[in-house]
Amino acid sequence: MNENFKIEKKLGITFKNPNLLGSALTHSSLRFENENLESNEILEFVGDSIMYFIITIHLYKKLGTNQNSGNFSIIRSNIISNQTFAKFAKKIELEKYIKVSKGQNKVGVTDAMLSNCFEALIGAIYIDSGITKVKTFFWKNYTNEIKNLVKKGPAKNIKMLENEEKQKSIQDQ
Amino acid sequence: MNENFKIEKKLGITFKNPNLLGSALTHSSLRFENENLESNEILEFVGDSIMYFIITIHLYKKLGTNQNSGNFSIIRSNIISNQTFAKFAKKIELEKYIKVSKGQNKVGVTDAMLSNCFEALIGAIYIDSGITKVKTFFWKNYTNEIKNLVKKGPAKNIKMLENEEKQKSIQDQ
Repeated sequence: MNENFKIEKKLGITFKNPNLLGSALTHSSLRFENENLESNEILEFVGDSIMYFIITIHLYKKLGTNQNSGNFSIIRSNIISNQTFAKFAKKIELEKYIKVSKGQNKVGVTDAMLSNCFEALIGAIYIDSGITKVKTFFWKNYTNEIKNLVKKGPAKNIKMLENEEKQKSIQDQ
Repeated sequence: MNENFKIEKKLGITFKNPNLLGSALTHSSLRFENENLESNEILEFVGDSIMYFIITIHLYKKLGTNQNSGNFSIIRSNIISNQTFAKFAKKIELEKYIKVSKGQNKVGVTDAMLSNCFEALIGAIYIDSGITKVKTFFWKNYTNEIKNLVKKGPAKNIKMLENEEKQKSIQDQ
């Protein structure tokens, strides 16, 4: 069974253009070994913008317009984060399918790389089949995770606390 | 002629729910005068995510996947910026329709407020009538502006240069 077929089965999606799936799974480190390869960086931008859109609309519907905008923003940042997307990637075992350079393979696949790969996959599904397919795939796999993150409320994550600390130390100088 | 009717005529859009248009045009400063008012902050999040989505897909189609990701990101940041959105707001004369507190009115309506109001308007159109209506409105009004910003290429704007400068001065310390 070839690799593309295995992951398509895992995702429950058959790509019209399998090259898109190939690109989504190709980390930029591989470009150093083969310049002709198309890596997932631009698809990552596409997927990121789609996730931002889907999650914002979902929160608008769930939280309503009288929500404090700061809280809205924190809940959204907790969802649209490397940490959350890396978990989403692991749930569909992207670590098994991501292609990285030999050098990177020795160092290991990081959570940031998995998060980017997840976004690129969302981008690839959109380009291949449109927004409805993305939504079906996303909610089929991650409804519970989103429900829990919304329920958790505006808890600041480590990155936010670090940024606040940095900001404070600059102001104190 | 009431205010809502005037701006609907200007936009070429009749809102099914005119309260959405009212909220989009209401700056948060007015909440200090009337707590029951719904301001445009959450609609601004919605509109921002939609613009991010529309512009990213447009750039993907225009620039292709072999574009350097740094350049892609700079071009996108030049479009999705307070500076550009304030211009978009002025093109449809939002400064005539935005509602701010008396205090804020004395200080004046800033470009950032106009940019936020533009995003909130995009959000309101989406919630009222969906993505197709937003796209029709957006491309009817701003096709030339986007064409020029894409043509201009990855020129760094003032904010990016300032951020680089700040970053450098932190590293030099």
